[in-house]
Order: sequence, then structure tokens, then C-alpha cells
Amino acid sequence: MPDERDRPPAGPFTIRGAVMHTPCLGGLERHQDAALEVAADGAVAALHPAGSEGFAAAVAAAARAGTLLALSPAHTLIPGFVDLHVHAPQWPQAGRALDLPLERWLQQYTFPLESRYADLDFARAVYDDLVGCLLANGTTSAVYFATIHEAPSLELARVCLRAGQRAFVGLVAMDDAAECPDFYRNADAAQAIAATRRHIDGVRDLPGNEAGLVRPIITPRFIPACTDALLHGLGRLAQETGCLVQTHCSESDWEHGFVAARTGRSDTASLDGFGLLRRHSILAHGNLIGDDDMDLIAGSGAAIAHCPISNVFFSDAVFPLHKALQRGLLVGLGTDLAGGYSPSVLDNARQAVLSARLLASGVDPDRDRSMRGQGDAARIGFREAFWLATAGGGDALGLPVGRFTQGSRFDAILLDADAPGSNIRLHPGESDDDRLQALFGATRANMAGVWVDGRRVAGTRA
Amino acid sequence: MPDERDRPPAGPFTIRGAVMHTPCLGGLERHQDAALEVAADGAVAALHPAGSEGFAAAVAAAARAGTLLALSPAHTLIPGFVDLHVHAPQWPQAGRALDLPLERWLQQYTFPLESRYADLDFARAVYDDLVGCLLANGTTSAVYFATIHEAPSLELARVCLRAGQRAFVGLVAMDDAAECPDFYRNADAAQAIAATRRHIDGVRDLPGNEAGLVRPIITPRFIPACTDALLHGLGRLAQETGCLVQTHCSESDWEHGFVAARTGRSDTASLDGFGLLRRHSILAHGNLIGDDDMDLIAGSGAAIAHCPISNVFFSDAVFPLHKALQRGLLVGLGTDLAGGYSPSVLDNARQAVLSARLLASGVDPDRDRSMRGQGDAARIGFREAFWLATAGGGDALGLPVGRFTQGSRFDAILLDADAPGSNIRLHPGESDDDRLQALFGATRANMAGVWVDGRRVAGTRA
Repeated sequence: MPDERDRPPAGPFTIRGAVMHTPCLGGLERHQDAALEVAADGAVAALHPAGSEGFAAAVAAAARAGTLLALSPAHTLIPGFVDLHVHAPQWPQAGRALDLPLERWLQQYTFPLESRYADLDFARAVYDDLVGCLLANGTTSAVYFATIHEAPSLELARVCLRAGQRAFVGLVAMDDAAECPDFYRNADAAQAIAATRRHIDGVRDLPGNEAGLVRPIITPRFIPACTDALLHGLGRLAQETGCLVQTHCSESDWEHGFVAARTGRSDTASLDGFGLLRRHSILAHGNLIGDDDMDLIAGSGAAIAHCPISNVFFSDAVFPLHKALQRGLLVGLGTDLAGGYSPSVLDNARQAVLSARLLASGVDPDRDRSMRGQGDAARIGFREAFWLATAGGGDALGLPVGRFTQGSRFDAILLDADAPGSNIRLHPGESDDDRLQALFGATRANMAGVWVDGRRVAGTRA
Repeated sequence: MPDERDRPPAGPFTIRGAVMHTPCLGGLERHQDAALEVAADGAVAALHPAGSEGFAAAVAAAARAGTLLALSPAHTLIPGFVDLHVHAPQWPQAGRALDLPLERWLQQYTFPLESRYADLDFARAVYDDLVGCLLANGTTSAVYFATIHEAPSLELARVCLRAGQRAFVGLVAMDDAAECPDFYRNADAAQAIAATRRHIDGVRDLPGNEAGLVRPIITPRFIPACTDALLHGLGRLAQETGCLVQTHCSESDWEHGFVAARTGRSDTASLDGFGLLRRHSILAHGNLIGDDDMDLIAGSGAAIAHCPISNVFFSDAVFPLHKALQRGLLVGLGTDLAGGYSPSVLDNARQAVLSARLLASGVDPDRDRSMRGQGDAARIGFREAFWLATAGGGDALGLPVGRFTQGSRFDAILLDADAPGSNIRLHPGESDDDRLQALFGATRANMAGVWVDGRRVAGTRA
């Protein structure tokens, strides 16, 4: 609906029907009938469960004003999904070559593909398609790696702004001639830092971005691709500009070992030394971080982008998710397109549950059960997975999204269990947890409406 | 299209376009342009790659006859999927209570739900919805557990026949008062055996089932739920009637240990002793079978229904898939609705790849890599997973389906990468393996057409 996307926020409205969210880790709040008031500025003004003080008045007032959206019994309103790790230029590669190890996958497929984004028209076409696809899958906030190309990376920010998606867009910095190919790397640290500074200003100054729906993010690809000079310089730039930072951290044995050999320290400690381990820095993967790393991350206020599908292919172990949550780390989910094959955060939320179950039970039938896995404590449940996909992602970024508490931005998905092509069925009277687990079977076909900042930006239904 | 479903096979036709299948394990045959001839009786008459002898003539003849279906560049014709393990009555429970251990899940959720199928109208409504959903997801052959209720279980066979789905339908037998609830079990072994005999005759004699599209299958639930008398009796009945057999085998430590304690042998050896380990017997799960069990299964010609999603929740290890294939076992995939949450065989094919990768790499980051997993030999690739979902499932059942070789039945799916709601993108000139891996991202939205036995039975497009 381009017409709707081009409109300013449509003024206050109220949605009445079933509402579900996880305001805190492990907590599930579901109302079979509630009135959710959205203010003219796109904030959640109030959530009134049926029967509560204010419910009847809110419904009556919206009905009088002609701003009441009444849901059907098959509908459930949930918060929009947050994708903390997307390599936008890798979209054409999604699902390909997943049998290669990370270092060969990068050199043979990814770097040659990313180098093509010097072509602005090619970039615009791919980014338009990707952002539309992510919104249709319910991703209302996304954190993007673009490429090293300035104009095409700024174009990704324009595409997000035009489509109405909340986003962080990063110009990739990678200058180490020993690890980056000649055809795809920054000339040197100074050039990469200057380009990043221009990207930050360019995104912040985009016409129509006064409210900061789309933001720049400082993006050293990962330590193996960057010289110390670049990493130090970007750390100083983060300090100076207040921009968030994203990079990869202890993703695989190869990457983890490479950094240890070069710096004598873990990725986490090294990033801290470069001034890159900051509040709301987004560290992708983190599968091999140790206890000291976890404490360092928790203390810094940095966050982990857990990418459970990608990790199966390019990491060598399962991220200790339950342990990280227990130790107070900020954690959300990432699709890691195209290391992960799916553009759906919900697919990754399901895999987060499955991978944690396998970490708990173990996998090898030739081992005695007592020696097989870490034990049931390593499990996470569907409540936790839903929280990671929504509020956890918002908290990782320091954004007021992912829950329907008063003052949060209204980023939301309307799930329709009766939509054409639906694989889920709802049943009256089931428990909150059964309903939550049933909704995990939702697909893009069920996403009848998607809102960002109070504006309807996607969905299968008018 | 009920009108089409009610029609007899529509006569010979030819499909021209991109065709992909895995005729043998590890082999991938893909033609960007080919002509596939379907005979009037629903068999594959010929597959002519473009440029081969016969291609031009086949296309010209079909064009003259008005029986040429020309595909678009976004289309790929693949074999239909085979689901070797579906608990049809558990469909309303799909995705629920997956946090419970198997024995509690059965007693608290599954048995009470299955007991409701004494109500024929309830059964018909659920089975109609389920069979339609599976066909829409590309499942052209399904192997069903029904319930212990005779008329409702025969109704499931009628529903499959009416919908045009190739199916094996089993009346569940479970008579052990120690393990089955009073409200849901057979009166005794003799009653269960007599009921199974009536079910076999009833399915075979269904009007319109002369060609045997829908077949009965002898279904002892699993050893813990059955007395020795019942198991022996059903073994004799299989011998007498030539019916295939399905049951569960070494699914979890609890179930595996229970059988070992009761019989002093493994599930596999016990089933063999009862006369139930026969050619094309379908053994669900098999996660904890040992080398001797594998040899016994391979020697008998029985098959494993690998259920990778369900196994994460209700088993305690990953099925050693690569090893089983190396030792020559017949293996296919099962959704295990509702132990698995997804009605999609393709979702399970993806998880088969992921689970095998985790068995290979291991999961525990606290262990040194050398001690973490079984090593890369335990991996399976996307070619193997696609084969399991199609030809492997057909071979497990001894059915001529799952590949487009001459004489195979035409059970097929038309994938449309450009369908509304598609999450996949195809690119010209990519390798066969890249295209195969890309198509693994397909969902129900991409299934524009589904054929069984040469008849179009589902699909999003006319």
C-alpha cells in the first residue's frame, strides 16, 4: 500500500481484540479482548484489558470518532519483530553455498557479491526487494550491514525510510589487505573512517528522517578484516558521535582463534580495548565467548545478536543463550541473512528454542545420556524466544519497541490464523502458553497487518 | 478445486519447463528446460531434456493436442513430498505443550484428545482440514496413525481418497492397561486384532479405491502401550494380509529403557521377535538404535521415519542419519504431527540438515572442538535432505513415487518463486546446488500446483 506509506501518521486510533506480548523476560501477558490506544505521534497511549477501568470508554470514544479497528476472533496483535543482524547485500545469496566453511564462503561468494554494490541501481533494486520482504515477514526494526560503498549504503537508509522500517544502517569498514580481497576493501584506515563519518552525517540528515526512524551505525566488519588503526579510529568515532556500533564476535573456532592469535585476547576483550565495546554495541553471534567475556559484555551494556540458524552452518557450537540471559546480557535475535537462509525472525525464534534444547539434551546417541548435553538448565522456552524476537531486541538497541507498554512506539503485527495459506489453527479456551506456542507456527501468510511507529507499512490485508 | 478432484485422471498431458529431482541418494538431476510427459493413467511416460531426442516432438505433439502446460521461468517442477509419520488426530494439538516430556505429553494432552475421535463428526472435520493442509504443503503421500476408533479411522481413509492424497491409514492398537488410560485403550488383544482386521478390509473395499490409492497399515502404537499377545497377533496378521506395519522405535531414553527393561532386548529386536519387523515396516524415530539394530533393520527391509523437529522435543539425541544411510537402511522423513509443530515435510528436511550439522559439530562450546561432536562425516547435505523428502520416502514404502523416472506415478509440486508471499528469489545461471538450496526456502505460498497420480489436487493457482 504505497499510498498509506506515503501518508503521515494517520492520527490516533484504537485496536480492539486479542493482544499478546512479553513485557519482561519469562513474562507473558495475553488478553483475549483488550483496547490498545495508539496516539497521533505513533506511541502506545494505553492498553486496557476488557473489563478494566477505561476499556469501555476507550472503545466507545474510538467508535464515535470512527478510529476503532475491531479484530476478528482469529486475530492476535503482537509486537513487531526486531532483527539485530542482517547483511542486506547478501540477500541475493540467501540459502546458497551453506555447505562451505565461513572463510571460503566469504572469499568465494560473499565478497564478490558485495563488491557489485558499487552499482547504485543494482543496490537500490536489491534493497527495495529485501526491505519489503522483511516488513512482510513482520520485521519492524532491522540492523543492517550494507557494503563499503558510500552512496549505495546511504541508499539503503533511504529505502528503509521510504518503506517506513525502523532501521540502523551501517557502512561496512574493512581495510586489512591480508584478509580482504583487493577488489573489495577500504583503501586504508583513514579513508574508511572518513567515509564512516560521512555516512553518519548522511543518514542523520536524510530528508524526512528528522524523527530518526533510520539511524547510522558504526560497522567494522570483524577484527580479522580490520587493522588496529581502523578499529581504534572507529572506537574514537563512536565516542565522538554517540553512534551505536555493530560487529561480529567469537562466531566460530576459526574466527575466535584468529583473533586470539593476532591480539592475544578474546574478541570481546579486544573490542573493549579498541573502544568498540559500548552500551548497545551489537555483537553478532558470540558463540564462543567465555565467562569473563560475558561479564565484560554485561558490564559494558553491549548486546548479543543471537543468530541460531546461521550458527548451525558457520559456527561450531550452540550459543549458551540461557547462561547469557542469566548473567544479565542483553540478547536479541538476528537472521544473519545470508549466513542464515531465512528472512523471518520467527523462524529464528523457533530455531533458538530447538538449538537450546539440543544444547541441553546433547546430540550424540553414542554417549551416555549423563554425558550427552549440558542438562535441562540450558533450555529456553517459547516465552523467552518470543521475548528475544520482540522486547529483547528492542532492549538490545535501547529502543522503546517490542512491548505494548505505555509510551512504547507502536510497532506491531496483526496475525490472522484464518488467513489464506495459514498453517496454524487456534482453539477457544486454550491456555496462554498453548496459544503462544500455536502462534509460533505463523508464517508470512498470517501477517495481515504490520505497523511501524503507528503507521501501517505492510500486510496481506487492506 | 473439488470439481477437478472429482474427475477421473484428466488424460495425458505434458509439462514443459524447469524440472528437478534426486533419482538416487546424492544425485541431483536438474533441467532448466525439459518436457515431462504424463500418461492418461497418471504415470510418468517420459522426461525429455531440451535438445534431447524426443523433446521437440513431445512438445509439438502436446501443443497440437492442447495438452501442453508451459511453465514460467520462475517455476520449478519437483516430486511431491512423502510424510512417513503423521498422527492425524493430534492436528488440533499442533505446536502445543512441547515443553512436556513424552510420557506426560501423552497422558495429559494426547490421549485425552485422541479419545474425542469417538465422535465421527469431530473426526471428519479435523481430518478434512488436516488432509487439505498437508496437500497444500506439498505432501502427496502420507502415512497416518488414526485412533482406536473404527468408523472414524475408516473416515480418515475416505477423506484422503476424496481429497486425492496417496495414503496409508492405520487404526491404532493399544491394549496394555498398565500404560494406557481406561478412557482410551482397546478392551483386549483379541478385540484390537479383530478391529484391525475389519479396518484392513474396510479400507481395501472403499468405493473408488480400486487402484489402492489409500491403503491400510497395521499400527501397534508402540511396545509400551501393547501386550505381547497384541504384538504377536498383529505380526501374524501382517504375515497373513501382507499389510505394511508402522510403529514407534527407540524414540527416547525413557521409551528405549522401558522396552529394554520389559523385554530384555532393544525395540528393534523385540519388534523382530513379534513378527513386526518386515519389509517396508515404518519405524518412527529410531534415535537410539545401535549398530546391531541397524543391521537387523537393513536386513529386514524395514525403514526409518526420521522426524527431526519432533526429535528435538521428545528424544534425547539426534538420529544418526548419515550412518543409517551408509549402512543401507531405508530412510524417509516424518513431520510427526503433533510431536513436531510443522505440517511441512520441507520444514523437516531443513531441520534434518541442521540437526545433522549439530551432530557433526557438536553443541557444547565449553568442550574442546575435538571433543564436541562426531565430526563432519555425520553431516548430510541438501541433496540428501531433498532425496529423503521425496524418493527416500517413496522407497521406504516401496511406492513408485518421489522421482520422475519413467513408470513412476506423477506425484509432483509446481514451485513458483514469484508467487505472492514468496520468500525465495531465483537468479539466472546459478549452479544446480545453489538452485536446490535456494528452493529449500520455499513455503506453502510457493506451491502453485500439487498433483497426485496425475491429478491436480491442490495449489495456489488455477
